[in-house]
Amino acid sequence: MPEPRPPAIILMDPQLAENIGSAARVMANFGLEDLRIVRPRDGWPLERAWVAASGADWPLDNARICRTVDEAIGDLQLIYAATARPRETQLPVFTPRQAAAELLSASGEGLRTGIMFGPERAGLETADIALCHGILTVPVDERFRSLNLAQAVAVACYEWRAGILDAPRQAFAHNIDPPVPAEAMIGLFEHLESELDDAGFFHPPEKKPSMVRNLRVALGRARMTDQEVRTFRGVVTALSRGRGRVLAKRAAALAARKAGEDKG
Amino acid sequence: MPEPRPPAIILMDPQLAENIGSAARVMANFGLEDLRIVRPRDGWPLERAWVAASGADWPLDNARICRTVDEAIGDLQLIYAATARPRETQLPVFTPRQAAAELLSASGEGLRTGIMFGPERAGLETADIALCHGILTVPVDERFRSLNLAQAVAVACYEWRAGILDAPRQAFAHNIDPPVPAEAMIGLFEHLESELDDAGFFHPPEKKPSMVRNLRVALGRARMTDQEVRTFRGVVTALSRGRGRVLAKRAAALAARKAGEDKG
Repeated sequence: MPEPRPPAIILMDPQLAENIGSAARVMANFGLEDLRIVRPRDGWPLERAWVAASGADWPLDNARICRTVDEAIGDLQLIYAATARPRETQLPVFTPRQAAAELLSASGEGLRTGIMFGPERAGLETADIALCHGILTVPVDERFRSLNLAQAVAVACYEWRAGILDAPRQAFAHNIDPPVPAEAMIGLFEHLESELDDAGFFHPPEKKPSMVRNLRVALGRARMTDQEVRTFRGVVTALSRGRGRVLAKRAAALAARKAGEDKG
Repeated sequence: MPEPRPPAIILMDPQLAENIGSAARVMANFGLEDLRIVRPRDGWPLERAWVAASGADWPLDNARICRTVDEAIGDLQLIYAATARPRETQLPVFTPRQAAAELLSASGEGLRTGIMFGPERAGLETADIALCHGILTVPVDERFRSLNLAQAVAVACYEWRAGILDAPRQAFAHNIDPPVPAEAMIGLFEHLESELDDAGFFHPPEKKPSMVRNLRVALGRARMTDQEVRTFRGVVTALSRGRGRVLAKRAAALAARKAGEDKG
């Protein structure tokens, strides 16, 4: 059995070149190499990232620099958000060890996986968390919760490697089809939300972001297969066209009644 | 049952203030606070350490700054050396998780524990490793072994905390007496080595450091109780006085023979 493919590390809006470089270094320490960076604050490339990587150049040399989260996670099928447990989202919460076990199992099944980290000060946006399938929470002491970004990456990567070394090498056999890549789910979300917008669903408008988020989390948890996504897009289409037909019917009935009144 | 007392973190000859500060920060993240620094290269205090600690000031404010390793570990009863597996020493090698379990168990019995880290480039001296009771090895990828000091501290501290959260809280009950603090073992080592020096044991002289090391490791593994250390010091004293008596006897015999020859 080949070595399972390690998860991608996705850094959302990182601020400090040193943290990006330190993250690359510790990725290399634990056998990870697929780094994706969304909107690095100070642009790219950043010389100080390479200095901090201290020779672990390859995650930086091959880093995928993205403008949007969709671009960064499009090909991934299982993504965990590294963050303190957020109250807003109904996602399962894992310790780093549990998350590593899940990622390892998924990777053993041939899925492409990733772990998403937020920027240094603010942490992950809930909209980005809503694109993930679970929360990875590092068990920090309540008295000092502020974990350095590269240290959070270190703990997650360490657990990945510890999991590989611990895991009995077993062949995975599953009867279910693999979940789709994130881009397919994002396509479904946007289709649905656009139809809901047209339908005046997001009311009042200021509530729209949280309504979108809750929808995405709930659907995301379903870990849909390709067939299921196609089915659901069909559902959205059918419902929205159905609504059009209902409206047309009502309009026709109204017109007919009006015509009758005119005659009478 | 009270929270077990976390291990002390001992940094031997650290070079960079940033690493000391980052170590303090991640110690605070995982509930550790007893920091001991042996010969910080750039002196002490170092403002950049406090900057890197990012608010986790207390391990730095209360850090014990030491000139020697003996001073730093004198009160500790169980110490692990964080290092790649060294071929020279016959100490048990643990993963960070196994080491955390051992430390937690020892701490639950009331022992004072510590984890020792070497300087950034060179790593721990074998003479310092020889004062420890086991090796903690972070499972890095062979292709990039160079782990940042603060990242190594992070993994060790993380496992300590994960162990606390996982461990079923059980009362420990042991019939054996606790092992002595390191200072008592160092006293025994020095006593023994001084006597061996006088006896011309360390020959050729350039082999002395490795001979000392091997002795210390072997004795250290015994995890002696107070009574046993006193017994062993008695052994050393008895043997060296005994050797004195043998020498005196030989000298007397030689003198007597010489006197006889002079007479004859």
